[in-house]
Amino acid sequence: AFSGNYLVTRNIKARYSKLQSFISSILVISILLAASTRIFQSEAWSILWIADNVKFLLIPILFIFILEYLLRLWTAPDSCPDLPENNAEFEQYIRTHHYRLFYGISFLGLIDLLVILSGLFTLISGNSSAWEGYLIVFALLKLSRYIHGIEIIAAVLKKERQILSATFITLAILIVILSTILYLVERNVQPEVFNSIPSALWWGIVTMTTTGYGDIIPMTSIGRVIGGVAMLVGIGTLAIPAGILASGFAYELKHREQLNNWHIISNLELFAGLDANCIKDITHYLKAEVLPAGATVFKKHSAPDAIYFIADGEVEIQIFPKPPTPIRLRSGDVFGEAGLLENRKRNASIKTTQNSRFLVLDLHDFHTLISKHVDLKNKIESINNLRKSSSPDSN
Amino acid sequence: AFSGNYLVTRNIKARYSKLQSFISSILVISILLAASTRIFQSEAWSILWIADNVKFLLIPILFIFILEYLLRLWTAPDSCPDLPENNAEFEQYIRTHHYRLFYGISFLGLIDLLVILSGLFTLISGNSSAWEGYLIVFALLKLSRYIHGIEIIAAVLKKERQILSATFITLAILIVILSTILYLVERNVQPEVFNSIPSALWWGIVTMTTTGYGDIIPMTSIGRVIGGVAMLVGIGTLAIPAGILASGFAYELKHREQLNNWHIISNLELFAGLDANCIKDITHYLKAEVLPAGATVFKKHSAPDAIYFIADGEVEIQIFPKPPTPIRLRSGDVFGEAGLLENRKRNASIKTTQNSRFLVLDLHDFHTLISKHVDLKNKIESINNLRKSSSPDSN
Amino acid sequence: AFSGNYLVTRNIKARYSKLQSFISSILVISILLAASTRIFQSEAWSILWIADNVKFLLIPILFIFILEYLLRLWTAPDSCPDLPENNAEFEQYIRTHHYRLFYGISFLGLIDLLVILSGLFTLISGNSSAWEGYLIVFALLKLSRYIHGIEIIAAVLKKERQILSATFITLAILIVILSTILYLVERNVQPEVFNSIPSALWWGIVTMTTTGYGDIIPMTSIGRVIGGVAMLVGIGTLAIPAGILASGFAYELKHREQLNNWHIISNLELFAGLDANCIKDITHYLKAEVLPAGATVFKKHSAPDAIYFIADGEVEIQIFPKPPTPIRLRSGDVFGEAGLLENRKRNASIKTTQNSRFLVLDLHDFHTLISKHVDLKNKIESINNLRKSSSPDSN
Amino acid sequence: AFSGNYLVTRNIKARYSKLQSFISSILVISILLAASTRIFQSEAWSILWIADNVKFLLIPILFIFILEYLLRLWTAPDSCPDLPENNAEFEQYIRTHHYRLFYGISFLGLIDLLVILSGLFTLISGNSSAWEGYLIVFALLKLSRYIHGIEIIAAVLKKERQILSATFITLAILIVILSTILYLVERNVQPEVFNSIPSALWWGIVTMTTTGYGDIIPMTSIGRVIGGVAMLVGIGTLAIPAGILASGFAYELKHREQLNNWHIISNLELFAGLDANCIKDITHYLKAEVLPAGATVFKKHSAPDAIYFIADGEVEIQIFPKPPTPIRLRSGDVFGEAGLLENRKRNASIKTTQNSRFLVLDLHDFHTLISKHVDLKNKIESINNLRKSSSPDSN
Repeated sequence: AFSGNYLVTRNIKARYSKLQSFISSILVISILLAASTRIFQSEAWSILWIADNVKFLLIPILFIFILEYLLRLWTAPDSCPDLPENNAEFEQYIRTHHYRLFYGISFLGLIDLLVILSGLFTLISGNSSAWEGYLIVFALLKLSRYIHGIEIIAAVLKKERQILSATFITLAILIVILSTILYLVERNVQPEVFNSIPSALWWGIVTMTTTGYGDIIPMTSIGRVIGGVAMLVGIGTLAIPAGILASGFAYELKHREQLNNWHIISNLELFAGLDANCIKDITHYLKAEVLPAGATVFKKHSAPDAIYFIADGEVEIQIFPKPPTPIRLRSGDVFGEAGLLENRKRNASIKTTQNSRFLVLDLHDFHTLISKHVDLKNKIESINNLRKSSSPDSN
Repeated sequence: AFSGNYLVTRNIKARYSKLQSFISSILVISILLAASTRIFQSEAWSILWIADNVKFLLIPILFIFILEYLLRLWTAPDSCPDLPENNAEFEQYIRTHHYRLFYGISFLGLIDLLVILSGLFTLISGNSSAWEGYLIVFALLKLSRYIHGIEIIAAVLKKERQILSATFITLAILIVILSTILYLVERNVQPEVFNSIPSALWWGIVTMTTTGYGDIIPMTSIGRVIGGVAMLVGIGTLAIPAGILASGFAYELKHREQLNNWHIISNLELFAGLDANCIKDITHYLKAEVLPAGATVFKKHSAPDAIYFIADGEVEIQIFPKPPTPIRLRSGDVFGEAGLLENRKRNASIKTTQNSRFLVLDLHDFHTLISKHVDLKNKIESINNLRKSSSPDSN
Repeated sequence: AFSGNYLVTRNIKARYSKLQSFISSILVISILLAASTRIFQSEAWSILWIADNVKFLLIPILFIFILEYLLRLWTAPDSCPDLPENNAEFEQYIRTHHYRLFYGISFLGLIDLLVILSGLFTLISGNSSAWEGYLIVFALLKLSRYIHGIEIIAAVLKKERQILSATFITLAILIVILSTILYLVERNVQPEVFNSIPSALWWGIVTMTTTGYGDIIPMTSIGRVIGGVAMLVGIGTLAIPAGILASGFAYELKHREQLNNWHIISNLELFAGLDANCIKDITHYLKAEVLPAGATVFKKHSAPDAIYFIADGEVEIQIFPKPPTPIRLRSGDVFGEAGLLENRKRNASIKTTQNSRFLVLDLHDFHTLISKHVDLKNKIESINNLRKSSSPDSN
Repeated sequence: AFSGNYLVTRNIKARYSKLQSFISSILVISILLAASTRIFQSEAWSILWIADNVKFLLIPILFIFILEYLLRLWTAPDSCPDLPENNAEFEQYIRTHHYRLFYGISFLGLIDLLVILSGLFTLISGNSSAWEGYLIVFALLKLSRYIHGIEIIAAVLKKERQILSATFITLAILIVILSTILYLVERNVQPEVFNSIPSALWWGIVTMTTTGYGDIIPMTSIGRVIGGVAMLVGIGTLAIPAGILASGFAYELKHREQLNNWHIISNLELFAGLDANCIKDITHYLKAEVLPAGATVFKKHSAPDAIYFIADGEVEIQIFPKPPTPIRLRSGDVFGEAGLLENRKRNASIKTTQNSRFLVLDLHDFHTLISKHVDLKNKIESINNLRKSSSPDSN
């Protein structure tokens, strides 16, 4: 009974996510097939057999995309963040809030439609080299729904968008001004290359992003000095986004760590059903603790002094004789609560197997919390009674 | 009455900023037109009609710029940071402090003048390809007044200027030394390419900024080794600015967050008119709290235990039946103060709609503050009386 | 008796690590010889003598690699993280846990084998230009075992792998889409260069990583605009990894500092043999303190108010007459404990010779700890008695 | 009497640093002249007059460098960090510690010598194009003594040298392996370009640093895929140094801020002569406070509640009638101490003119400190008596 209910919840989630990941896989494969057949079709080194039969591949992919589009349109209202309680209200709510329209005119909704139209064009016209048929490559943007971690990048970019866009506008201004100066300097020496400011602008962006194709190069001494300044100014300006993103990610990381702690606590069997107020109080009393791999968190027969929540890392419960698969607890698990609840000595040693970070709730603070929150006290007593009556298996 | 006065202030600001943003738009459009007609005029793919009539566009733009310049010159004294109280003092102050001259010889003041002179030159001389006429492109620098977020970048660059310039000087020294070595190595093999150290310097800056045009390339083995070293040293050195800016932005971000908290508190109706000392005390008692989207901050009928200031994010007040437009509070708003002032249970639940950060002032700390600051106590009592007499509408 | 036992442990470690570093050196030299003879053998400017006799060099290197491989295979079970206590259990454990197989199919295990097979192929076939013989260059990957600091990089990369891979997948999607658009724009103008989407993809990756070889360049105006967008999007996207890594390293650095503090405390003579619980308590009472170079930590004859642990930096014990080699304490050393234990005034001044960071345990907190932990009290009394009986040499 | 003694110290420092900066200027100019005459001498666009008379410039520069070298050699012992008290000890100390030899064989010592020898070679041999004469360009490395901020960069690089070198070693290994693979792939298609692994290595370093000269480019499809991987791996690897440096600079910045606070406190008249112990206690009681520009720190006639140290920013003392040059206090200054010492109301308002950071010592903590440290109490009373007897001018 380390975290029984919690494990059950996990199992349900795992089973549900199996279906979800199966559907996701089909969609991801369809997207990759749709894009890659188009990309490699136009090439000499594409296998002829596929080139001839590409339409037979396109038909099932298009069928999947159309089905997906219709389902997304149909279920759009379910994705509204705050559903009303009863059904009558819900129906009225949908009528007044145009979620299906919102999906239809959203960026990804338009991309979904564009991909279908592009595929249909190829099938109907039979023209495999028209530009309309190539738009199916935009299907790759549909992948953004399945890339884990992209929402963190999006959150940071959104938060820092003002400074980031200020940087790029500044860069654009600097490109125009430095290119104009270079144009004035070089137009007499290389009139055919620097024939207009837009040509110089092309030099400017190629140079200030340090791409340096080498198709337009300053030849005069003063032009080379301006070129050198342009490179350094470009690098200096483009170091700013990296700097902004670094501090943005650090902030987001800290933020998410706090939210993660909140989730760990609020998802535990021990604290389930308590209101946010009480959980906030608990999180205030928690202390972070970092231990290296191989450290003993507590020894068997020691006095129960704290409850431990694993924020990061892994511990092993030391039982003799050693079981073939060691009992290990990971991020999100709790241990050491039984000793506190039953007021008895530890019945097993706990050892870290990795560098780990714990959230620790001291015995003293635990009692302060119980005396403050009656709900918490009742909950714990009922859990304890339940445990005493069931198997007395662990710490 | 969530934050009545505060909303009034906001409205005034919004109306004032409408006029401001209208004038800004005209100036920004003028700048963009002035620069872009000049840039694309010289090009073959420019539309002929514009090329012929560009002067008719230039006249109104120049008129706007001259008007702007004169107004800026006229109103320069108003931008002084600390205006004296009475008018007599003010006039004497202006006479002794040469704010108009300061604007005239400031960087942007000189650019404003240069742009006007360049435009007048084109109009008067009628020569559209003289270099003097191209200086109107510098009008883009005038845009720096309208780029939001550029002042943060400027503040960080100013703060870290010493280390940043040390990096660029170090890079310059390394370029000269590595280029000289390469010159000595390659001058016998490619005498026409590496004909002098300045040519090698051009190679050095093109290589160490990783631009790599490919016009000058080492051919000998030892020259290629020096080239490889130059690339790695260049990248290593240019990683330093990104590192410095990252820590600089992190510091600036933290700094601005603290200032932001101070502004949130000091702009509230509740604490308006209190002296800095008292507000400083309040900020000392505040605790930061982060909650995920969809969390309940407090429930209806729960005991009032704290005042919440929204530093970041959004909450929704849960009212039944649900209104068509939900009542939402955003960054800078306050909630939960009515319960504390009237000493009654919460009359609505509050739920976050985004990941949010709050500044929380506990009941206990609130009473400590009231007992310490008599001004605050009187203020709160008067607000409370006012509220009791008016509509008893919310939490 | 500054930290007698600690120094003994250090000496043992130093001697053991001498043998280890000797074996490491042999292996590192073998690896470098194996790779470099192969790299330079194929070249005109390779010395002929080595080219002829390279096999005589290859035979001993291969012998070393084979021996290393067999020893690694043999000792694989010793590297298991949690060895059972008694031998019978150990043998059964090895049988049930296939550590040797795990090594065999691990990445470095396969590389070890590949390098041996590649070397044997060259020796047996006598063909020095077959591609199989070139695989010996992979021996360089074996160096990863000997690069200090690489485990920190690996830990950060592992922790941030989700966001990092999201960035690179996003970049890949953007490359494909921008390249397809450029292909559609340029295929009519430069049909021989942009002959297929894969050619455009090559342009895309060369441009968005700002490599810019210059072999494929957009010629049309609209193509150049797309090229400029590609460069900026590429730089913007590739600034994200730098940002993520910066915050990842900052977190890892802080984490390792905490672990380092834990190690400093738990490795000290004074606190040796205490359980993790007690050491955790000690670390909770520690305060960090930073002093500049040349500052006096405490003066002779001052009252003993704290124990100092050096986390970073160096101090010098001021003794007169000055000894030829000054007595200096470094990171990991402790000072000021004798005064507290014997309850007498400081018998020497302590001065910093570098900017230093200390962990300070105050007199008051020290006594709180002693009253809480009987083990600690007994330990300290026994150390004190021991010291009093031995030489009364220092602070 | 805001900080009388402190200002005196500043003046002395300023006068001393005037001489120092004069000598520095001469040396910097000499270095720049020595390097630039050599760099531009070899060029066609160098002015002929200088080229002929360059020796007359070289003779005084060499004289300065030789004088500098001899003086540095002579004064080397003075730069030892811990000078003994009496002269006899000092002389013996110099004899046993070979500071002059240490300077002679130090990096900058050798550079100083090399530059002199190179200059002498040119003068004596009269050969202005021999490579020995070009070594005078290394004089630029002597500039490293005069670049402010370079010691911070050096400190960060030294601290993070392990991870940084691990990154560059990893990059080197990846370059060798990817180049070898590309060599095997391309050697049959472009045998004259990829004629050996070293040629492929040149491609590898030019590609993985994203320099991209374009002299060696993969032509095969599989070669282009490897090329793309090389670019992304290169960028990914070279993002690590930026990340490491970012966290390194953040740590160093924080560290230096703490040291800066220590210096601010320990340099003040108020706390001068107190021992480190007492100053450490003071720094423990300080609270950081950030205020925006234009905020009132305290008002005239308010009760004295704290002493303020300016860590960053600027405040103005509000006096009526306004003086022509406002009285402003900057980083390192203290205010508000007079009210506490004399136990009277504030006699002026204080307003910030910039965003500022203060270190605040509360009235309560101030009295705790006085009761704990008798030295501090005596000192303050004597200052107060002194002030009462002199002009009663300010807050």
